Amino acid sequence: MTGGATDGPGPTDDSGPSSPAGPTGPKRRGRPSRTADTSGPDARTRILEAARTEFAERGYDRTSVRGIAKAAGVDSALVHHYFGTKDEVFAAAIELSFEPALVIPDVLGDGTEGLGERLARYFIAVWENPASRAPLLAIMRSALTHEAAAKVLRGFVLRRLLERVAEGLDVPDATFRAELAASHMIGIAMFRYVIRAEPLASADPEKIIEMVAPTLQRYLAEI
Amino acid sequence: MTGGATDGPGPTDDSGPSSPAGPTGPKRRGRPSRTADTSGPDARTRILEAARTEFAERGYDRTSVRGIAKAAGVDSALVHHYFGTKDEVFAAAIELSFEPALVIPDVLGDGTEGLGERLARYFIAVWENPASRAPLLAIMRSALTHEAAAKVLRGFVLRRLLERVAEGLDVPDATFRAELAASHMIGIAMFRYVIRAEPLASADPEKIIEMVAPTLQRYLAEI
Repeated sequence: MTGGATDGPGPTDDSGPSSPAGPTGPKRRGRPSRTADTSGPDARTRILEAARTEFAERGYDRTSVRGIAKAAGVDSALVHHYFGTKDEVFAAAIELSFEPALVIPDVLGDGTEGLGERLARYFIAVWENPASRAPLLAIMRSALTHEAAAKVLRGFVLRRLLERVAEGLDVPDATFRAELAASHMIGIAMFRYVIRAEPLASADPEKIIEMVAPTLQRYLAEI
Repeated sequence: MTGGATDGPGPTDDSGPSSPAGPTGPKRRGRPSRTADTSGPDARTRILEAARTEFAERGYDRTSVRGIAKAAGVDSALVHHYFGTKDEVFAAAIELSFEPALVIPDVLGDGTEGLGERLARYFIAVWENPASRAPLLAIMRSALTHEAAAKVLRGFVLRRLLERVAEGLDVPDATFRAELAASHMIGIAMFRYVIRAEPLASADPEKIIEMVAPTLQRYLAEI
């Protein structure tokens, strides 16, 4: 795990030990944009949000840097400037979409008792909210259909999320167990929101939480 | 839809409960093909296997009846004759791919004790076998990206599989519980075989079975 600058959209350099571009992570292209009116933090945010929407609506395959730039009202060069390649824009969009998930280590922070229920409740709340659900589904779709997207997700989910969760657990094979828990919640999301298999699709969230909480509790807190 | 001017043998009426074509079930198009050397059970099997391969390799979107026919070495009309529309071919291909899963009710048949472990072991064996894994992953991909595919899967999984499983269970909300169990195994498959998140991706199958079996046992056999 990388130690330092984790505050902002931090180091998502998970593509291996290539690029010796410096210690500032993927947004390492230093030259400021020439088009003053479209640069700055606002443009960066606009690009990121456009990227998330484009990936969500069009899928990984049909999304292009050019399309993202157009949707954000900026020049393609500015997208490259801030984020780099399409894969790097995708990584940044994933990060934005997973922001709710990054709170999970805090959810875990309150100790072992009731952990499974807290986590189940948190997951369901994220999935029940269409605003957070749509980009997560888009990521799942992309990862299922494109190895490049799967690779980005793999690096991100593992390094930023599951390993951090695992650090807070007091069980053997903590990362393995965190993955089992996460896989269950992802599978439920697929059944409930994508395939919409009844009765799970219409089930009361509380009923799901009640059934799933003991499973998560066992994976994450019981030896 | 009119029954008339469809090119090849037989109407391709797939748009609902119209066509009073006869009591012989979904493959109700009765008239035999005119091209003797490409008809018969062999041609049907070849079409089905070609369909499964095409959907698996190209995805739902890029698969066409024409492409399936070409891969099977038959005329498109024969595909329509045996199966109907692309969605109906897809449904038949799903059925073929899920054949291993249709044994599940038998797996359940041996009673409650050890049920979770038997089921976990069975799932993992199906997923570990590349021959059965590939089409299942293809279906998941299609269902995640195409509502038409999701709809077919929804109907099939529910009616043919989960409800049959649920019938054999002695718990309340049996279908709901069967879905929770299935969703967990699907999620594990995504993490292990698609995202390939370590350490789950390289974990000993026995270790996964050991952890997951009690979860399935609780969902399917404990109130």
